[in-house]
Amino acid sequence: VADASHGWDDGLLAAGFGSQSVAERLSWPVRVERMLEVEAALARAQARLGIITEAQAEGIARACAPGRIDVARLAEEAATAASPVIPLLAQLRETAPEDAVTALHHGATSQDIIATASILQVRDALTAIDLELGSLAERCSALADEHRATLLPGRTLKQQAVPITFGLVAARWLGALVRRREQVAWSRPRVLTVQLGGAAGTLGVYRDQGRALVSELARELDLAAPDLPWHAERDRVVELAGVLSGIVTVVAKIARDVVDLSATEVGEVRVTGPSGGSSAMPHKRGNPTDAMAARAAARLAAGELSVLFGAGGEHEHERAAGAWQAEWVALPSALVRTAGSVERLGTAVRGLQVVADRGAANLASTFGVTTSEALAAALGASLGRGAAQALVGDLVVVALTERRPLVEVAQADERVAEVLTHDEVAAAGDPRASLSNVSAMIDAARTHHLDVAGTVDEVTR
Amino acid sequence: VADASHGWDDGLLAAGFGSQSVAERLSWPVRVERMLEVEAALARAQARLGIITEAQAEGIARACAPGRIDVARLAEEAATAASPVIPLLAQLRETAPEDAVTALHHGATSQDIIATASILQVRDALTAIDLELGSLAERCSALADEHRATLLPGRTLKQQAVPITFGLVAARWLGALVRRREQVAWSRPRVLTVQLGGAAGTLGVYRDQGRALVSELARELDLAAPDLPWHAERDRVVELAGVLSGIVTVVAKIARDVVDLSATEVGEVRVTGPSGGSSAMPHKRGNPTDAMAARAAARLAAGELSVLFGAGGEHEHERAAGAWQAEWVALPSALVRTAGSVERLGTAVRGLQVVADRGAANLASTFGVTTSEALAAALGASLGRGAAQALVGDLVVVALTERRPLVEVAQADERVAEVLTHDEVAAAGDPRASLSNVSAMIDAARTHHLDVAGTVDEVTR
Amino acid sequence: VADASHGWDDGLLAAGFGSQSVAERLSWPVRVERMLEVEAALARAQARLGIITEAQAEGIARACAPGRIDVARLAEEAATAASPVIPLLAQLRETAPEDAVTALHHGATSQDIIATASILQVRDALTAIDLELGSLAERCSALADEHRATLLPGRTLKQQAVPITFGLVAARWLGALVRRREQVAWSRPRVLTVQLGGAAGTLGVYRDQGRALVSELARELDLAAPDLPWHAERDRVVELAGVLSGIVTVVAKIARDVVDLSATEVGEVRVTGPSGGSSAMPHKRGNPTDAMAARAAARLAAGELSVLFGAGGEHEHERAAGAWQAEWVALPSALVRTAGSVERLGTAVRGLQVVADRGAANLASTFGVTTSEALAAALGASLGRGAAQALVGDLVVVALTERRPLVEVAQADERVAEVLTHDEVAAAGDPRASLSNVSAMIDAARTHHLDVAGTVDEVTR
Amino acid sequence: VADASHGWDDGLLAAGFGSQSVAERLSWPVRVERMLEVEAALARAQARLGIITEAQAEGIARACAPGRIDVARLAEEAATAASPVIPLLAQLRETAPEDAVTALHHGATSQDIIATASILQVRDALTAIDLELGSLAERCSALADEHRATLLPGRTLKQQAVPITFGLVAARWLGALVRRREQVAWSRPRVLTVQLGGAAGTLGVYRDQGRALVSELARELDLAAPDLPWHAERDRVVELAGVLSGIVTVVAKIARDVVDLSATEVGEVRVTGPSGGSSAMPHKRGNPTDAMAARAAARLAAGELSVLFGAGGEHEHERAAGAWQAEWVALPSALVRTAGSVERLGTAVRGLQVVADRGAANLASTFGVTTSEALAAALGASLGRGAAQALVGDLVVVALTERRPLVEVAQADERVAEVLTHDEVAAAGDPRASLSNVSAMIDAARTHHLDVAGTVDEVTR
Repeated sequence: VADASHGWDDGLLAAGFGSQSVAERLSWPVRVERMLEVEAALARAQARLGIITEAQAEGIARACAPGRIDVARLAEEAATAASPVIPLLAQLRETAPEDAVTALHHGATSQDIIATASILQVRDALTAIDLELGSLAERCSALADEHRATLLPGRTLKQQAVPITFGLVAARWLGALVRRREQVAWSRPRVLTVQLGGAAGTLGVYRDQGRALVSELARELDLAAPDLPWHAERDRVVELAGVLSGIVTVVAKIARDVVDLSATEVGEVRVTGPSGGSSAMPHKRGNPTDAMAARAAARLAAGELSVLFGAGGEHEHERAAGAWQAEWVALPSALVRTAGSVERLGTAVRGLQVVADRGAANLASTFGVTTSEALAAALGASLGRGAAQALVGDLVVVALTERRPLVEVAQADERVAEVLTHDEVAAAGDPRASLSNVSAMIDAARTHHLDVAGTVDEVTR
Repeated sequence: VADASHGWDDGLLAAGFGSQSVAERLSWPVRVERMLEVEAALARAQARLGIITEAQAEGIARACAPGRIDVARLAEEAATAASPVIPLLAQLRETAPEDAVTALHHGATSQDIIATASILQVRDALTAIDLELGSLAERCSALADEHRATLLPGRTLKQQAVPITFGLVAARWLGALVRRREQVAWSRPRVLTVQLGGAAGTLGVYRDQGRALVSELARELDLAAPDLPWHAERDRVVELAGVLSGIVTVVAKIARDVVDLSATEVGEVRVTGPSGGSSAMPHKRGNPTDAMAARAAARLAAGELSVLFGAGGEHEHERAAGAWQAEWVALPSALVRTAGSVERLGTAVRGLQVVADRGAANLASTFGVTTSEALAAALGASLGRGAAQALVGDLVVVALTERRPLVEVAQADERVAEVLTHDEVAAAGDPRASLSNVSAMIDAARTHHLDVAGTVDEVTR
Repeated sequence: VADASHGWDDGLLAAGFGSQSVAERLSWPVRVERMLEVEAALARAQARLGIITEAQAEGIARACAPGRIDVARLAEEAATAASPVIPLLAQLRETAPEDAVTALHHGATSQDIIATASILQVRDALTAIDLELGSLAERCSALADEHRATLLPGRTLKQQAVPITFGLVAARWLGALVRRREQVAWSRPRVLTVQLGGAAGTLGVYRDQGRALVSELARELDLAAPDLPWHAERDRVVELAGVLSGIVTVVAKIARDVVDLSATEVGEVRVTGPSGGSSAMPHKRGNPTDAMAARAAARLAAGELSVLFGAGGEHEHERAAGAWQAEWVALPSALVRTAGSVERLGTAVRGLQVVADRGAANLASTFGVTTSEALAAALGASLGRGAAQALVGDLVVVALTERRPLVEVAQADERVAEVLTHDEVAAAGDPRASLSNVSAMIDAARTHHLDVAGTVDEVTR
Repeated sequence: VADASHGWDDGLLAAGFGSQSVAERLSWPVRVERMLEVEAALARAQARLGIITEAQAEGIARACAPGRIDVARLAEEAATAASPVIPLLAQLRETAPEDAVTALHHGATSQDIIATASILQVRDALTAIDLELGSLAERCSALADEHRATLLPGRTLKQQAVPITFGLVAARWLGALVRRREQVAWSRPRVLTVQLGGAAGTLGVYRDQGRALVSELARELDLAAPDLPWHAERDRVVELAGVLSGIVTVVAKIARDVVDLSATEVGEVRVTGPSGGSSAMPHKRGNPTDAMAARAAARLAAGELSVLFGAGGEHEHERAAGAWQAEWVALPSALVRTAGSVERLGTAVRGLQVVADRGAANLASTFGVTTSEALAAALGASLGRGAAQALVGDLVVVALTERRPLVEVAQADERVAEVLTHDEVAAAGDPRASLSNVSAMIDAARTHHLDVAGTVDEVTR
């Protein structure tokens, strides 16, 4: 660990792609503290059921107090042991009172301690991630409200389609964030579950008190108690990986929108704050650095999540030789990377400036042809859909070729004039004409957000 | 499509790795029917709100009736179009009554139709998958009950650890299956959601009736109505991918256990039914063919799921140029493969024979050393844990070296004799001594299964 | 197979994401023909070594002639067998001459036949893919040549950086395509290797003629002969997956550039041919449909490739129970999808129109600030780098704020005037000033392409 | 970085899943040194071409000397910058001689420095990995030689198939390792390539000396010079990912064999050295800890490799906003994990003990039915294949049911007696009868290994 302080993956944090605060909570030394916490809680739970004495439990708790373990020595020994628990217990046995040593780790196996400690770390990470998601949702909600009517071109396959508003985009972001928070809240109690089974899941040493002990331990640690041990059934971990996949999906989408909308030629949003600049070009000011980092982190998280998806079903018998141990690294790493992606996106979105008139200008740059659907609809009432579409198709070609507004071209067209007045054409060609549902959709997303924010805050306290 | 009848991926079905029945429900011709169903439902919903006339809706419904589309022509045209909806509409316009043509597809875009049709297919697939999961759970529940006390060695890192029972293994399988069914039930209404947004998600053509229309359409199709369109926010699809990942994880684990437990040298379960045999070896009878196929299918499903995970956050602006279209293939394929994996596992588990005394024989083959933990615990009360563990370690070496039962070796040992009677040694060395919690765990899993079976059946009818 | 004609994955072809011609060569019926070809070749090879008689080999060859197998019956039986070879042999035994039956499949196992047949299909697919890559490279080479000097803004993080040319972009595409062709050529003989080992890789039935027989079989099929069987060492398949990953990487990059450069606001390239249009918007003409399909296919290929990567190391003992069988589907599917992605990209690039003056216009739209680096370099000679960069930074702000060309702003600046003449400023601000290395780079890429085209064509004939 | 010393992913090293020595060479501080090395080499190369002065180059080289950078400050600043190069240059400008500052980083962009530095680290890692692969191959070669005739059952689908030898297994491992070394050697010069392009790949600042400078820089760093910059064409990185995928595939397969063959019930190999033990069970001695760690590391490597595969084609325009930056972490991490997997497998295989008679005993435990193919072949000569297979099928059932050796059962059978003598039956039933090709296969693999070892050592020096 001493050497590891110059470790290869510090780059993650140095590059700002991981969450520093989550990384600290999921660090190796903190993991050791969590394992000690589990050993102490196990002892207290056993004492409560009379399996060991109160004195033994107290002795264990004292030995497990923070700061009493030589972490460097532990790391060194763990690297060649099958698990870090064995050298940890060796150290505890050196310092615990003699009568407590017998009761230490009583009936448990290494996996019980590592897995439950890991779940405690997952809880911390999920709480931090959800908090950040909530803050991001709040900001999106405000953007949706503020920019209900800020025009920009909707784009499909990167081609201008019909007018939309930035508020609608932000509301779609918001909706996706809120759905992810709902899933976090639902999966929390399913995933945040004690693992205690003993050597191979029979709770054999505890006679008939096994299930009661699992419940007591769960209560001690404020985790859920499972029906039965899950040492080799890792679907809970895969469920968590699914939750995190959903989160990085939403992060990547929003970050991509930020990058695309801030492209020089689009320019509908602008990033603020330290943007990175360039080592070569003095004019480079608007690099969407935070969105870039959010996307990098989301990709990196997906890599670790693929490990969890791939390993989940490959746990042989009662403990896997490889598939489980891969979780030791992939799970915390996935959480740190996911948290990092959310944090960096948070910075990006908080610093986002909507360039108010650029969207309208971009619509104008295509001469209003993005209202062709509305114009065709207006004409269709009289001409029938097919004829109307064909006519508008012609007008669009004229508008683009002659670089004149579609409305003007349509107003000058005789076939149009037969069925629509100039005002009717102008109305159909107004980009705002097709936006009458937008505010209601934004409101729906914002209301849903508030509902979930209330509920979720209760869940995570 | 005609040519595709000799298509490259028929192999999936020919090899038995896909679900034939789900494949049929998710086929390309059925997808076309589903798209027609969506167009018809959209018309009816619009008629109800007065957006189009009842006569128009009826005309559209007639044109959309099953069997009226030339699917081969459609397939040919779709291959060069941006989407299959455009040539589909072309055919419909040829056959629909003239006044209905204007109302056909009114205000919708291709993605609305494809995506909602796809969700209808997802619903069918999820229902089929959950039904099969339920049947599999029922069988595991029965196995757990029947084999509560059927001994076998628990194995960690492929080494015999402590005695467990086959019933406990089956209960762990059951628990995992039940957790997956809970997630299917929870995610169903979240995923089974209408997509309707029009060209870029503004519902622009419907004036202020957009959200009402979405609700009507949802009612028509018995799907949920979303807060706002989700054309480019694909986290729902990723959530579904997570659900399916959980399922194939559990399938793979159970199938792996079946393969491992039926290994010649382990032999604790035996597969029945047509086992495949060998093209070379007359003695080859017990190939776990169904479990093998289940694992192959699970791997294949994971491949398609990785497409969904990877694409989910890469949807640019209001419609992706590639990431969305990849869903057209990956999503049905993932469902067919997942369903196939569950079906083949169902066959494997239904045909499973537990070889009742083989587990006990395997325990005996290691001279009872798998009770070392229990013996150490018994000795520990007097000797202290450290001394007891060391002593048992010595006895284990003797037992393995001299190929004598550990109990016998222990009974003959003077140090043991000082603290334990022969009977006490025999009791500690009885593999059943450590199984007193097993039945309660099995009961808990079975009860949970029954609770969920009741609830889920209600959800999916 | 009959039922599979309405199979779920026809959608791949219907959607145009797979290669129809490669799909046909990799179809299930063709796979059966390939298996028959291997059985016949095996017989001929054995006859040559005197293991069986010439008459037996001829009898087998006749039974294995194309068109004599009932493929529908075979498919049905294969779905419940461990492998399709067992029912195939059953049919062959019905039709082969009695004395030939004993010699049929002599000493082989199912995996030998399936795997070698699969390699024959891989060969066909690789040849088709490489041919298409070559054609695509040729087109990129021509584009690079033609558009050596066609200006557009280089873009980093979607922000305009410095001027480049379209020819340079095409040359970079070309370079990547050529590197992939080199790898295809290098890996071909490594991957296109016979598998023959018998039941578990000992070639046991052939006495001491095993290795000689492998060589004869390889000669018959024009494949390489391996040092030893590779039934459970699937690194060759993973090497192939790596080759295909490289190809779809390059396809995805080029297709992404096509999509990005054809975006409405960028507009530097335009797609031609049937572009798909929109079911809603009459003005939608320039959808980059082929590039879109290429990207979708590349994503889908990556999904199947992930199956091959994931399964490669999980082959237990001498034949895997699941990991190998997953290859049956994932390998041909990966090839069909890869081939499809290359084909659709070929169509996209062949139809690409470079909009000659749009790049220059886009550069002008940012007032020439993309020459800031060159201007700073020119000033730096006198002012030092730091001062020059700061000064140009100021000028850039003025240019962008006042919407005036950077050259004009610089020429009007007193600090600039002290060190550079108007002509020197104009020279530094000419976007072409920094392009003097471009032609040489384009030439290098084109020359490399010609070298490889010559060599590779020899390899693949 | 200071805080990162307690970083979350130290766990990788603490758990022993990463290579400590490779981690050190790929650490963040070493990466900084490598970036300095590139800046210095770039200056020297420019001086040689007269682009900057020798004095400037020397000044830069002195500023870039190891140990002069405040790495902690750099890490802190890099986390909010777009890249670590910008704050690195800021520090260099503080310490470099004034006249050198102008020449520092002249014409380069951040990506040039980071990417080329990264390639230098890749080279170190590849060399270390290949060295370890070579050592592992050497050990497998020795095992193959030593255990040419050590019997064990070949197993397909985990069922005993026919007799093989451990030497053949080791030779298959060897063959796979050698193929991977060949690929490393072939890809090295393709991947170990300088990146220098300037702001967007035009080498614009260097007038017409751009390509010459790239060559000079390549010579300075002993890397290959590319035809043109590859800032956004990342297929080289994907090619490398393919190479590493091949390596971890082979590692996983060998490690899996070690785990499976050391399973309690199989017991044909035994691991030695510190095996980890158990925190619960005194008898747990033979845990295959190193193979377990190798498999965990291989899974973890695959996770990072999936990032590289997924990102490779998503580099927009001339520099990606996310896809490239993900490489900063995924590439070194993939190398450290791959190296770790190879190292741990090396320890596992070096410590492997073949339990000489256990394989024969396992064959005997199935009463010799694994020779059924040979017996059927012997009978087939007289009875015809079909009848012989049926007869042997019957005899196998008798042998297994009555628990008598197949040879004995066959010798007692009248139908057999009609065509084979007792000695002929015994000969067919001898497990060694089918192994006559094994030694030649082992020799072929060993010879290939020696050829490659000679060549590769030359390549990597």
